[in-house]
Amino acid sequence: MTMTEAGLHRVLEPEGVLPQAARRLDTDPRIRPDEVRVRVERLNLDAASYRQLHTAHGGDPDAIRREVLEIVRSRGKMHNPVTGSGGMLVGVVDEAGPDSPLGLKPGDRIATLVSLTLTPLAIDDGLARWDGRSEQVPASGHAILFARSIAAVLPADLPVPLALSVMDVCGAPALTRRVVTRAAAGGVAPVVAVLGAAGKSGSLSLAAARRAGAARTIGLVPSEDEERRLAATGLADRVVRADARDPVAVAAAIGEPAGVTVVCVDVPGCEHGAILATAPGGTVVFFSMATSFSAAALGAEGLAADVTMLIGNGYVPGHAALALDLLRAEPGVRALFTAGPGRDSAQ
Amino acid sequence: MTMTEAGLHRVLEPEGVLPQAARRLDTDPRIRPDEVRVRVERLNLDAASYRQLHTAHGGDPDAIRREVLEIVRSRGKMHNPVTGSGGMLVGVVDEAGPDSPLGLKPGDRIATLVSLTLTPLAIDDGLARWDGRSEQVPASGHAILFARSIAAVLPADLPVPLALSVMDVCGAPALTRRVVTRAAAGGVAPVVAVLGAAGKSGSLSLAAARRAGAARTIGLVPSEDEERRLAATGLADRVVRADARDPVAVAAAIGEPAGVTVVCVDVPGCEHGAILATAPGGTVVFFSMATSFSAAALGAEGLAADVTMLIGNGYVPGHAALALDLLRAEPGVRALFTAGPGRDSAQ
Repeated sequence: MTMTEAGLHRVLEPEGVLPQAARRLDTDPRIRPDEVRVRVERLNLDAASYRQLHTAHGGDPDAIRREVLEIVRSRGKMHNPVTGSGGMLVGVVDEAGPDSPLGLKPGDRIATLVSLTLTPLAIDDGLARWDGRSEQVPASGHAILFARSIAAVLPADLPVPLALSVMDVCGAPALTRRVVTRAAAGGVAPVVAVLGAAGKSGSLSLAAARRAGAARTIGLVPSEDEERRLAATGLADRVVRADARDPVAVAAAIGEPAGVTVVCVDVPGCEHGAILATAPGGTVVFFSMATSFSAAALGAEGLAADVTMLIGNGYVPGHAALALDLLRAEPGVRALFTAGPGRDSAQ
Repeated sequence: MTMTEAGLHRVLEPEGVLPQAARRLDTDPRIRPDEVRVRVERLNLDAASYRQLHTAHGGDPDAIRREVLEIVRSRGKMHNPVTGSGGMLVGVVDEAGPDSPLGLKPGDRIATLVSLTLTPLAIDDGLARWDGRSEQVPASGHAILFARSIAAVLPADLPVPLALSVMDVCGAPALTRRVVTRAAAGGVAPVVAVLGAAGKSGSLSLAAARRAGAARTIGLVPSEDEERRLAATGLADRVVRADARDPVAVAAAIGEPAGVTVVCVDVPGCEHGAILATAPGGTVVFFSMATSFSAAALGAEGLAADVTMLIGNGYVPGHAALALDLLRAEPGVRALFTAGPGRDSAQ
């Protein structure tokens, strides 16, 4: 790809880095021929980012709102400097450059499927309509999409917040499907364990794993409440309860180690439990942005664990369509998305 | 495995976590029946850890020494709290419990192949023989190995510091071999690019990639000096020069994207260059402890890059023997190990 397709020209500092690595982006509303300008309606903050903001400000909604505004003002993007994560947005296409390859036209209501950490964003309403109490942020302003951005027109048959929630985590079921399909193609259908299974990415990953040919699915959740709710959906063959940050408890709850373990718990410290829960030769897929690279690498080494560890790539071709199809086809997934807490995990 | 095998009983705080996650370990020299006590002769600090210490103290050897001593004293292990990384050690077996499965006996000179971040360690000489100028640290004290530790008896045909350097990075060539072998088995031998190719893990990975059937190998280095030295070894089919932290420069230097990209540069900020250097459907293997999980995950998403990203697991069965064999068989690898700078990369 060319560097303009990747948005390099919008980087103000430091020079020569890609937009996600930039401290500050240029939010100039005048677009290049291959860009698209979107009128923003809503932000969906990454769960780890919202949790960090919530904790840092003791849950004070005004303080959380002020910090989000300050981040966007100073960086030209909603890129939480502590967690390194962003989120996504929904809006209406305002102007599409003649050379944009995204196939969008003015008036399309879309969701961005690339992170807010690399999307030029300006807010013009002070987030006055946001109560600061969840990661769903009603907002007014504009955002810029590059030639290589990924944006999906919102489906007509689903409420916007629901579609947005699904698209926000759609990389997880898509990569889970791929990993389970490949493992099954190797001859033995794998047992799949999902940590944080009652959350959004977790429930979609469970559904994707079963459809991809998992021999058996195990959903691990932290509380009795989630245990009951997940069991009611029938998405997992077995529902178990443990604190995902406690490796000893996780290993005991999972029992016989899994062939594929999917980590969807958005709190730090779940690496070792996931490794212990995985059989030699198996695969751990880390989707949580709270994952520590060194804890995972050194943990596996320290446990002499011969497991393949994947960094959960948010982009797999066809991911949005797959996740929306899972939501439509699985009443259990929809139940967890609509009745559950806003957070991706209840830990 | 049992939790005792993993060393859980040596964790002082917080309770119930595995040794790598612990703030503090118990260094009591009295061993359990399945433990081994080692008389320490030398520490080999992780390159990222030494670099951080060196930078934080402006290269002052006394200040670096004091901080290492304080870390070991307060944590009961050499676990750099900033980088999260450790290193390894060499020593002589002092006492082996009757139930230890490691096959060691008193007098064996060994290297630990699990990280210092989870190895109980006490220093008793104030590191008086260390000049603070490299990550190779002569030291006196004792360390404890658990039942599931990995330790290798040092080979008789190689100098100890050389064998230690090789074993320290032996996970990289082993995982590179596995990834390249699998890619080649898929029908098309991959082009393999190694970032930080003139360093220890880089040169071993280049050699492993070629032997595993790479169609072509490309070594990326940061300086003219390394370019010349790597070219002289013949380990890479092509040697190119760029700052690995500059994605634009990396992509330009590599040219046609690689099927497998191996990241051995121990400085932060190399994720995006590696992703840009990799073809759709390809694999990036991150070995550097300076890798940021979120930068990799969000970077791939932001670039709409359908690449598989692996967390470099330091443990692959047979890794030490493979790396030592590569060193013995490849004069180019040995030349880089013995003539190069102590650091894993010269950036």
